Amino acid sequence: MSPSQPLWPYVTPGIRDDLFERLPGIPMSPREVRVLILAQLCLMPTSVLWDVGAGTGTIAVEAALRCPQGRVVAVERDGEVAGLIGRNGARFGASNIAVVEGNAPECLAEIQPLPDRICVESGRPIQAVLEQCWAYLQPGGRLVATTASLDGLYSVGGTLASLRALRVEVVQVAVNRLENRGQQQVFRAIDPIFVFSAEKVA
Amino acid sequence: MSPSQPLWPYVTPGIRDDLFERLPGIPMSPREVRVLILAQLCLMPTSVLWDVGAGTGTIAVEAALRCPQGRVVAVERDGEVAGLIGRNGARFGASNIAVVEGNAPECLAEIQPLPDRICVESGRPIQAVLEQCWAYLQPGGRLVATTASLDGLYSVGGTLASLRALRVEVVQVAVNRLENRGQQQVFRAIDPIFVFSAEKVA
Amino acid sequence: MSPSQPLWPYVTPGIRDDLFERLPGIPMSPREVRVLILAQLCLMPTSVLWDVGAGTGTIAVEAALRCPQGRVVAVERDGEVAGLIGRNGARFGASNIAVVEGNAPECLAEIQPLPDRICVESGRPIQAVLEQCWAYLQPGGRLVATTASLDGLYSVGGTLASLRALRVEVVQVAVNRLENRGQQQVFRAIDPIFVFSAEKVA
Amino acid sequence: MSPSQPLWPYVTPGIRDDLFERLPGIPMSPREVRVLILAQLCLMPTSVLWDVGAGTGTIAVEAALRCPQGRVVAVERDGEVAGLIGRNGARFGASNIAVVEGNAPECLAEIQPLPDRICVESGRPIQAVLEQCWAYLQPGGRLVATTASLDGLYSVGGTLASLRALRVEVVQVAVNRLENRGQQQVFRAIDPIFVFSAEKVA
Repeated sequence: MSPSQPLWPYVTPGIRDDLFERLPGIPMSPREVRVLILAQLCLMPTSVLWDVGAGTGTIAVEAALRCPQGRVVAVERDGEVAGLIGRNGARFGASNIAVVEGNAPECLAEIQPLPDRICVESGRPIQAVLEQCWAYLQPGGRLVATTASLDGLYSVGGTLASLRALRVEVVQVAVNRLENRGQQQVFRAIDPIFVFSAEKVA
Repeated sequence: MSPSQPLWPYVTPGIRDDLFERLPGIPMSPREVRVLILAQLCLMPTSVLWDVGAGTGTIAVEAALRCPQGRVVAVERDGEVAGLIGRNGARFGASNIAVVEGNAPECLAEIQPLPDRICVESGRPIQAVLEQCWAYLQPGGRLVATTASLDGLYSVGGTLASLRALRVEVVQVAVNRLENRGQQQVFRAIDPIFVFSAEKVA
Repeated sequence: MSPSQPLWPYVTPGIRDDLFERLPGIPMSPREVRVLILAQLCLMPTSVLWDVGAGTGTIAVEAALRCPQGRVVAVERDGEVAGLIGRNGARFGASNIAVVEGNAPECLAEIQPLPDRICVESGRPIQAVLEQCWAYLQPGGRLVATTASLDGLYSVGGTLASLRALRVEVVQVAVNRLENRGQQQVFRAIDPIFVFSAEKVA
Repeated sequence: MSPSQPLWPYVTPGIRDDLFERLPGIPMSPREVRVLILAQLCLMPTSVLWDVGAGTGTIAVEAALRCPQGRVVAVERDGEVAGLIGRNGARFGASNIAVVEGNAPECLAEIQPLPDRICVESGRPIQAVLEQCWAYLQPGGRLVATTASLDGLYSVGGTLASLRALRVEVVQVAVNRLENRGQQQVFRAIDPIFVFSAEKVA
């Protein structure tokens, strides 16, 4: 790779999973799920995105590449994981990612600027995280939250309803990938995930 | 909507389905499938995309918006549908779409410039369409083909293998959307689709 | 079909959908979902099954055929639909189905004998229906409830938890069928459904 | 478990996965897939089923329990796996399973009686296995074949077409199970499988 050629030179999101640095046990939104999360975020060129529970940092990186005039704040409680996000940002030349090591929702109070986009990938208690995120979200902004659990489905759905969020949508993504297995190619399922999206009244 | 505000001002693909003009019976890639097709296309800022069997034109429009310096050629045999693509392009302010009304693969010989990206959404005989498309595809270029049928799965897979395409991937997308139905919200399945992608040797 | 040959002479459940009489708008569990519901019911030869919100009656018919020494009570509020269930029972020679036309949960108080198996396919308010069904369910019995809605997922899950049900399982079934469409065979998705199952302490 | 109480006393198929003895690396059809395979087999009380590539033996066991007057022949090339099938049969009290250790299609010539039902769960070359199975299948009999691979999808579909099989159906089963993971319950996908079924002219 020449210095002038970035790792993901494309204008479409959907970075291949194997291009990211990973740590064992740290969750990562697979490409097929990630592109849907990004679609639901509806990023503007100048968006300020908070990525809460950023994990491997794949959403943060993709959003940063799409919004060179914008800013991404990745919030992650674990120090080692926070370092991973930073390295993944550097790997893709995304200079507009700030990594905040801290516990949501407490640490959110310190973060500036306020977001017009929020992605909540995890966090407990999820209700408190969502409520605080919603409070910081700018009018007209959008929030996307993902969950793979039944409890999460209950909590996120219930919390968004109580917040009087607009345009609430829920999509469940189930993707099968053809993978090599010995001499055969077999379809393997990616675990399904529910993607909630909602808009705050302007 | 003010004159200065485009219909899809966002930097992320994934235009809402209801923003497109539609014609009865004309297929449209739903948003969740479309974002994966676009991810697999890996568009460059200056890409030339041929969209063969463009239908409603949603891929053409999304690609054109991502590649303002690039060009999109939408190929469609039906005149009425070709008109629909043109109107959808205008609706989103995508001035870099050219619509070619004609039968693939015959009509492809006339099209300039040659593509570095091709999306084959339909076409019969699919094998001949793919082979011709592949011949026109620039070295190092990418081709994405979708199919919902068993015959298509056989034909596309077999043809790509015979063309010695690189990095062939197959992903099956199955998405459930929560939709309103009376007073309830129920999960409705979007019909599954297989997305093939492949790269031509540079 | 000779008089001596029943319509479904097989010992395995999974009657083809097109063998049932149907009424427009009346829901029917498709074969692929039905066999999973029956698996979760774990019917005994002498089981008494209450099928609440029986719709087209497919579960009632399949259960009756598996349990010739048992009894099936199909509960359905709509008179026309109740008639449909009766006709489907007769069609398959299932003489051990009784159809109760009435509103659950009120009408359940009249039904004898008490069930060791209950299938709740619909009903509102679902929480009250489930609680009453659970009260009538014999110790050691099993209850299966299906839902396609987000509200149903919340209500059924929450109610079973509050009832201290044992061995609660949730399975989401998503099936794609290859169907003829013009000259092609395309995969069509059956809308996904969540199947809850639970056991009452013995 | 008392001596008089069998391990699966139910009249419905769908034995819980954890009731089977397993060996590492030996494939097993999960319950949700198994009930659909059994539904497609349409077993008669006196059916003779050949289960080719029987793996853990779950289909053989379920079929044997449904058809006490019938016979199941489980064909398996690996001696250790053949032993596993025998133990699973004994475990469930299925005395009408015979295990044939041998390579299909060669070993099929020795097997008596001829089948009216065949389940092909694996085998290579799949085309030769299917063709030989079809030759042995009694007129009016049914064959079910499963595959998780793209090659298998091509081969099984193509072979059944060339055999002029009747009523060919293809169903893809995708199931998500709610599983415990730490303190949460998350949906996990079972890898999807394609189930072909076909009937031989009577």
